[in-house]
Amino acid sequence: MRLPQGFRNGDTPSPNHRNPTPHFHNTVTLRKLRRFNSLILVFRVTAFIFSLASSVFMVTNSRGSGSPLWTDFDAFRFVFAANAIVALYSLFEMGVSVWEISTGATLLPEILQVWFDFGHDQVFAYLLLSADSAGTALVKTLKRTDTCTTSASFCVQSDISLALGFTGFLFLGFSSLLSGFRVVCFIINGSRLHL
Amino acid sequence: MRLPQGFRNGDTPSPNHRNPTPHFHNTVTLRKLRRFNSLILVFRVTAFIFSLASSVFMVTNSRGSGSPLWTDFDAFRFVFAANAIVALYSLFEMGVSVWEISTGATLLPEILQVWFDFGHDQVFAYLLLSADSAGTALVKTLKRTDTCTTSASFCVQSDISLALGFTGFLFLGFSSLLSGFRVVCFIINGSRLHL
Repeated sequence: MRLPQGFRNGDTPSPNHRNPTPHFHNTVTLRKLRRFNSLILVFRVTAFIFSLASSVFMVTNSRGSGSPLWTDFDAFRFVFAANAIVALYSLFEMGVSVWEISTGATLLPEILQVWFDFGHDQVFAYLLLSADSAGTALVKTLKRTDTCTTSASFCVQSDISLALGFTGFLFLGFSSLLSGFRVVCFIINGSRLHL
Repeated sequence: MRLPQGFRNGDTPSPNHRNPTPHFHNTVTLRKLRRFNSLILVFRVTAFIFSLASSVFMVTNSRGSGSPLWTDFDAFRFVFAANAIVALYSLFEMGVSVWEISTGATLLPEILQVWFDFGHDQVFAYLLLSADSAGTALVKTLKRTDTCTTSASFCVQSDISLALGFTGFLFLGFSSLLSGFRVVCFIINGSRLHL
């Protein structure tokens, strides 16, 4: 699955001056590919940062004895689990992306890789949205009870964790769009490389 | 956008006996297309029934004065709104599907129709999942309070509404898979008709 020679940088121009189009085309395609892969990497890194931050904010959300604990609430455990899963997945996908940019090849066989990325992006986006929505509903309910009046910082930290989780979902959604585009490219051209 | 003559049933066999393949191919394609469109219609009808039932169960969830009212809770209002929107959308898509099966043409221009269906399926699936997750978190919290002990039927009816909503989401997800497949077919072949 390595890139053909024509895709590499640093090639000397073809001596065939009557037909300069293929080299020009390859350079443009290479530039587009680099941009596309870099964009995916940026989305992966951002999704990783936000979902990791969200899970850290949730897991540290305890104020000692007498205060509420995040593990007492199912929805908060769900928020932590979903964000931790997405953070781990994004870390793996960052590695995959860096590997692809540096070697020009996919880690798994190409057909498996494009479907793996798209399928997991979709499923984890649904998982994260579901968890964050459940967490939001719980915080809204807690604000009507004594929990948030006696321990305001507990609710504020939950709010921050949820906001970070929703932002992570947004960037996972963007990644899903791009990986969906790669699947379509692969179906049409038999290769993810033709944009 | 009408189907070409070869796609219609009841054609007399071609007098050109040396090349019977195209007619055979068209008959098989026609049968596949009918099955595909009928499957989409079945998913649309099921999504409509479940989301309508969910919104009806939620909107009738009041037990007179002294009992809790569904409108008092943001998450329940969200569940009702999301299910009502999906029910209306599914009703429209049922009409579109019936129109397509009976006339062989799409209601909107073909490119617009396939992207409209896929885009709305995706967005409304996220909306419905988000609403149902929020509702589930609320009901779980209410079960720890007096609300569900003094008015158990209120919580049971909410549970039923949410279960119906999740089933509606499942069938909307199936529809989304099929409409995604139609988009890919359209991108590859320039027509949704080639399976």
